[in-house]
This record gives sequence, C-alpha cells and structure tokens, in this order.
Amino acid sequence: MLLCIPFSLYYGGADTHSILFSAAITLISGVFFSIPGKLKKMQVKIKDAYIIVTTSWIIISIYGTLPYLLSGEIPDFVNAFFESISGFTTTGASILTDIESVSKGILFWRSMTHWIGGVGIVVLFTAIMPLLGSSSMQLFSVETSAVTIEKLHPQIKGTAIRLSMVYLLLTAMETILLMIGKMNLFDALCHSFGTIATGGFSTQNASVANYSPYIQYVIIIFMILAGINFTIHYYSLTGQFSKVKKSNELRFYLALVVIASLVVTASLLLSNTQTLPVEQAFRDASFQVVSIITCTGFVTADYTLWPTISWFILFLLMFSGGMAGSTSGGIKTYRHLLLLRLSRTELHRRLHPNAIMPVRYNNAIVSEAILTNVQAFIIIYMLTFLVGTLGMILFGLDAKSAAGGVASCLGGIGPGLGSVGPVSNYALITIPGKYFLSLIMLLGRLELYTFLILFTRTFWRK
Amino acid sequence: MLLCIPFSLYYGGADTHSILFSAAITLISGVFFSIPGKLKKMQVKIKDAYIIVTTSWIIISIYGTLPYLLSGEIPDFVNAFFESISGFTTTGASILTDIESVSKGILFWRSMTHWIGGVGIVVLFTAIMPLLGSSSMQLFSVETSAVTIEKLHPQIKGTAIRLSMVYLLLTAMETILLMIGKMNLFDALCHSFGTIATGGFSTQNASVANYSPYIQYVIIIFMILAGINFTIHYYSLTGQFSKVKKSNELRFYLALVVIASLVVTASLLLSNTQTLPVEQAFRDASFQVVSIITCTGFVTADYTLWPTISWFILFLLMFSGGMAGSTSGGIKTYRHLLLLRLSRTELHRRLHPNAIMPVRYNNAIVSEAILTNVQAFIIIYMLTFLVGTLGMILFGLDAKSAAGGVASCLGGIGPGLGSVGPVSNYALITIPGKYFLSLIMLLGRLELYTFLILFTRTFWRK
Repeated sequence: MLLCIPFSLYYGGADTHSILFSAAITLISGVFFSIPGKLKKMQVKIKDAYIIVTTSWIIISIYGTLPYLLSGEIPDFVNAFFESISGFTTTGASILTDIESVSKGILFWRSMTHWIGGVGIVVLFTAIMPLLGSSSMQLFSVETSAVTIEKLHPQIKGTAIRLSMVYLLLTAMETILLMIGKMNLFDALCHSFGTIATGGFSTQNASVANYSPYIQYVIIIFMILAGINFTIHYYSLTGQFSKVKKSNELRFYLALVVIASLVVTASLLLSNTQTLPVEQAFRDASFQVVSIITCTGFVTADYTLWPTISWFILFLLMFSGGMAGSTSGGIKTYRHLLLLRLSRTELHRRLHPNAIMPVRYNNAIVSEAILTNVQAFIIIYMLTFLVGTLGMILFGLDAKSAAGGVASCLGGIGPGLGSVGPVSNYALITIPGKYFLSLIMLLGRLELYTFLILFTRTFWRK
Repeated sequence: MLLCIPFSLYYGGADTHSILFSAAITLISGVFFSIPGKLKKMQVKIKDAYIIVTTSWIIISIYGTLPYLLSGEIPDFVNAFFESISGFTTTGASILTDIESVSKGILFWRSMTHWIGGVGIVVLFTAIMPLLGSSSMQLFSVETSAVTIEKLHPQIKGTAIRLSMVYLLLTAMETILLMIGKMNLFDALCHSFGTIATGGFSTQNASVANYSPYIQYVIIIFMILAGINFTIHYYSLTGQFSKVKKSNELRFYLALVVIASLVVTASLLLSNTQTLPVEQAFRDASFQVVSIITCTGFVTADYTLWPTISWFILFLLMFSGGMAGSTSGGIKTYRHLLLLRLSRTELHRRLHPNAIMPVRYNNAIVSEAILTNVQAFIIIYMLTFLVGTLGMILFGLDAKSAAGGVASCLGGIGPGLGSVGPVSNYALITIPGKYFLSLIMLLGRLELYTFLILFTRTFWRK
C-alpha cells in the first residue's frame, strides 16, 4: 500500500492520508496475528493448507478494501469487496462507473491488487500447491515430466524467487515499451500490472480503446506472454530452449491464439454490418481474442455489437484460459489439449475395444488417474458455470448477461455479455449478486477443488 | 406405409394413391437390394456394422420422404427429409406450419415414423449394439451387471421380441386411456406413437395444449414410462421386482422428474408475471419438464414466455435425457448419475491422494475404462452442441435460437428456444441449415460415436 504514496503525493495528495491509515491498520493486524505463530511452532497439515489458501485470499481481499473505503472512493463495503477480490483474483470485473474521476493513489492501489494477486498465483501454483499434493499438475509433473511445473530449484524459495524475477522483468519491459509509446509512468505501470497479472483494470473509462495502435500491439504481445507458463519464460531467459521446445502445451496455446484471431478477423471482415479497414479488424479481433484467452479483460472494442458469430466465439474462448503456471484463469490449455487427445483415443477405442491406446503428452504416457482428473475438472467447471448462471438469473439478470458474467468471472476475465458487457460494468448488480460473483471469482481462481473441498463431509471428518 | 391406408380411406382417400405408390417403390427397392445378399452369404465385420447402422438410418429417412413428396403435402425434398429424419430419430422437430390442414393418411405416416424409429432404437441399443461391442452400455453390463442392458433371452431375437411386446403393450394401453378421454382412434394412436417413441409429433397445431387435463396427465404418465429402460418394464410385467429395485438409474431418473417438476412449478407460482391456478402451474410445469427430460417434445404451454429461470431450467434439462435402453435421447440419466458419483470421488481424492475410492453403481464397482468413456461422451456431446450452435449461427440464427434448436435436435426433443420455440417451427431455416440440423438429429440418435467414428483415419485404414 505504501508504494501508492509517491503517486498519491505527485497527483495532489488527496488520498495520502487514507492510504497511510489503511497501511497502518494492515500492518498492525499483521503483527498482531503473527504473534501466536511465533509463540508456538505449528505443523501445517494438508487440511489446514486448504483452509489457509482459501481464507487468506478472502482476508487479503478484505484488507484490500481499506483504501477504497477510507478514501470514500468506494464508500460501501460490498462494492469495495467486489473491486478488491476482482483485483486480487486478477479478474478485472469492476463496479466503478467513472474510473477517471477516482484519485490516482487509489487507482494505483487498484492496479497493484492485480500485481500482488498475480505473483501470488504464480508462486502458489508452481511452487507451493504441488508440495501439498493437491493439484492435478503435481500428478502431472511426477508422471509425465511435463514442463508444466518442473521445479526450477530444489527449494520452494529458490523456485519462487526465480519466478518472481521473471514476473518483475516482464512488468519492467512492458512499462518501458509503453512509455516509449508516450504513456506516462503512472498509466504505463498500471497497465503493465494489469497485463502481466492478466488482470484487466485500466486507468481509463474506455480501457485501452483510445490508445495508439502501437500501445495496443504492445499490450497484445505482453498479454500473450503473460498467458505462457512462467517456467517456460525462465527457460527461455536462461537459454534452455530444448526444454521450451518439449512443451506441447506452448504450441497448442500459440496455435489457438493465432487461429482464433484469424477466424474472428475474418468474421468481422466478411460481415455486412462492419466496415473496418483490414488492419483495424485484425487489431480489434486479436486484441479481444488474446485478452479473453489469457483472461486479462482489457478492451478496445465493444464486441457485443459485433456479428453473432464473432461474439459467440469470444464467449466460447472465455472457457479457454492460458497455460498452466501462468497468471491466467479458465480451464487452461493443457486440459483442453489432453481432452482433445483423449476424445480421439475414445473414438478409436470403439473400433478396437481391447487395444491399449495410451494418451501421450510431452512424449510421456498420461495415466488414467490424470485423465479422469482433467475430465472431472472440466465437467465440474461447466457445472459451476451452469449453477452460477442459474444463480445470477435468480439475482435478476437476463440469461445472456448471467451466462456471460459468470463465464467471465469464473475464468477471471472481467467483461461479459449483455448488461455486463465490455462497455458496461457490474455496478447495477444487486448486493447478493455481487457477493455471489465474488464467490465465483474466488472459485475460479482456486481452480474449484481447493474451495469446493471445504464443503465435503470427508473434509470435516476426524 | 400400408398401415396408413385404412385411415387414408376413412378420411376421404385423397392421399391413398400416393401412399400406395410410396409403398410400392419401397417394396420394389427392398426386394431389389436384398438379391445380392441372398446370392452370397456375407460376413458382417465390426466396421461394416457401423456403416450399416448409420446408412440404414439415412436410407430409411429417404424412403420415408416418399409419402410427403408424392402427396404434395411437403413438395420439396429438404423439408420432406427433415420431417422424415426428425420422425425416425424420434426428435419431433417439424417444418409444417399448419399441421391440421395435412391429409390424415400422411399425418398417420408422420406419427408412424416415430413409432418405427422408436422400436428400432430399443431393439438396436438393447439387443444388437451390445453384441457389436460398440456401446458403453455393453462394457457396463459385463462389468457391473447393471439392469441397463441385461439380456432378457440368450438369443437376440428372443430379447428383441420381448422388448417389442412391451413397446406394443404400452402403446395399446395409452391409446385406450386416451380414447377413454374422448380422443378418436386416429388422434389417440398418433399421440400414443409420439409418446411411447418419445417423438413428439402431434396431429394438432397447438400440440397437446387444447386437450383436457385428463389427457394431459395420461400423456405425462406415459412419457415418464417411455423414458424408463424397457428391460425394467419387462421385469415389472413379469413380476421380477427385485431386479427393478436394484436399478440406481431408475430412482435417479424418477427423482429428477419429480424435483425438476416441483422446482419449475414453484418458479411459475412465485414469479410476478404469471398468475396461474396451482393445479395448472403444476400441470404445465410437469408436462414441459417430463416432455423435455424424456426428449418427447409435446407441448402444452409456450415456455419461452415463462420467467427466465423457468425456461433456463428447461434448457438445461434438454441435456438430461431419459434412461438407457429407453427411446429417449440426450446424454441419458445413467451417465449423469455416474458423473455425479465420480465428481464426489474426485473431490475426496484431493484429501486422500493415494486412497483407492472406487465409484459404485448397482452395488458393483465401475471400472476406470467406463468412467473415462462416460466422461468423454459427455464432453464430446457438449463439443458437438457448441460446434452445432456455431454452425446454426453461421446459417443465420440468433445465438439463443441456435443454442436452443441444436440442444433440442441433438437430444431428440423437438421444440427449442427463440425462433424455433414451442409455438414456432423449423420452416424458416435455410436449406443448408435444415440439412445441418438433420445431421445433428442423426448424431444424437446414434450416440455420437457410431457416426463420428466414420470420420477417423483409423476407421478407413486397412
């Protein structure tokens, strides 16, 4: 929070006091709650770990509301909590109707929540979760030696530091490139935070729409980079290209980005209602496609006005997600890739019922347990989406807005369809609806299991 | 076809000649094509079986167009083919805008296509497919001794005769009960054909809406019966209740029907826009719920005018389907039941990664191979739905009508949403759109694999 102070002071200092006060409350609480831990060395069991991961996301989000509440920029708790959890989960769904009128210190905090959440996710999913044995990626690394979550260093701390350095480096590179495109330091940092964390909060009401094509292309490229597994970045930066080449998921992810961009560009150019120059059609299409695949949520065009086929493809892409080990949300590309291979195998099995036809990934055979896990994840994901859509219809949304909003929040994207589309926001949703969507964002961020497990009987049994 | 002649003559005989001529062409073709088979005893291999099953459905549908074309009631081939394949696949999607103006002989043929298709499905899926080793149900019966497709007789012919008798008996019972409700023989037979085959073609423009509550309740009950595995009917009729009790799927299916009916009734009563008497709300809700779960497609109310939550639940139920071994379509309840149990197991596996937690069904352990198969089916089903929806959007439908129409045709239901809703029909869809939907109906009817397998490289490899 204290990092917001320089910008707060530079832009007039109206929010300096509230930020300082928020930082003080957070610091005192932190010191207070850390005392019991120092008095007694506790052993963390697997069940504790689940509770810790879930509740820490909620507690961080609650403390994240302090700057909004104390500055009065978002005076009521439900909106502040929605904005805060949307930030930390790197969703980027907003309840602010006029972003440009918000004071700069608070806006910087808003973008920083993305950045903090993003690095948390990378470290959590690539360094900590595998040790808990709680992630399908862990099974994965053991059995297929996938690049997915190969450890970069024998110790968690070593891996975490390396990944954080990559994260920092990408942010710095984008900031510099944006400043070359004549963005000021404040906007460049905020947009870099939003990009590298695949968050999507902008400092402008029009998101990225009013910036130059150069800036839009820079953001497209860095969104693509942010959707890539961070261990792959580390390997590239340290020259270990053989390990990069091994990744089936990387090729699949890049192919998806390119093909989807071209298809949507074509749909825009061929439709009668749109008369765009080819370059702009390609830029608009690929920006929206990349923003949604990587679960960022920046916007340069109102895709709800596009032909049905174009926005429907974007809606489907809300279920894609980027690579495992990136900051993106959604189902993630390795699951889709495994699913495609499994579907092909299942078809072949019709003809040769007794033949053994293993599914391969990164040149290794994938076990039945992993395949079941991946399929179950996708099905539970779709069920969550459907139940969520039903819920939002009950909270008063029409079917299209409900489906779009839930798909977007579950995937950690931000803009949805209809009344929660890219030029609208989530301000008009009822209070229970906002808490419900906050829950959906958290569910998506924690990849469902970590959260849903808390509601099983087995979990609470001795 | 000749069975239509009595009704054709009784109602004036305008279409008698075209029906006789259609029957003659079909008979001559049949004799002609059966000659090579008699000359040489051929051995049918597994690959041949797939081609035979798929093409016979198409060939039967082509011959089924003859009465429509020759009588001039449906003068163009694409519409006649759509109506014919919709009949044989027991979908019930129609391109007729004024059903009551069609001559009675032709209407009887239209309802008979359901009945022929329905008995074909029961015999195909419970007696023939398991022998080909091509159905997941076959694996199932071997490994879990499920009621699902237990053989009723050591020979296929014996099983097929027993199932056909059940089919005939149910049709006769419903016809009698409908005639007690003052329907004439013609309408009673047509509606019984539509019910027992879970088809949905009516002889009235308003479907079942203008009939008495008694008739609507009779149809509700027989739709529920038609969605039950026909081997279970056989066991009930022969007093083997212990085998009936063993079926987990039966309890799940009945629970789904009851709960969904009550939820939709409640949503109608609680909404402000609807002011229905409780009995009518219950009757309308349960009729539409049962009609959609069992994939019949009869209609007594325009559910597109219902509150969003009500029609959205009906849309979700389009993916349900009835029990395996019934004439219903969709995903089918045993797959949903297995999926629920598997999802629960997967959650528990997070906590005990190394514990062995088998999924049970009818008191037996379900193998990993079956679980993978069921999950892959559901995922391929959803993919087919999404690709189909994209296709229909390309053919000019809006997103809601496309999604509703494809979900409905894939599940073999009939009415969809929007422009293809329960009081509309499929007449206004473009010619390629109609062929595309015909394909979707066939895909759904053949449970995807049997059809999709023809497009794999392995299939055509020597």
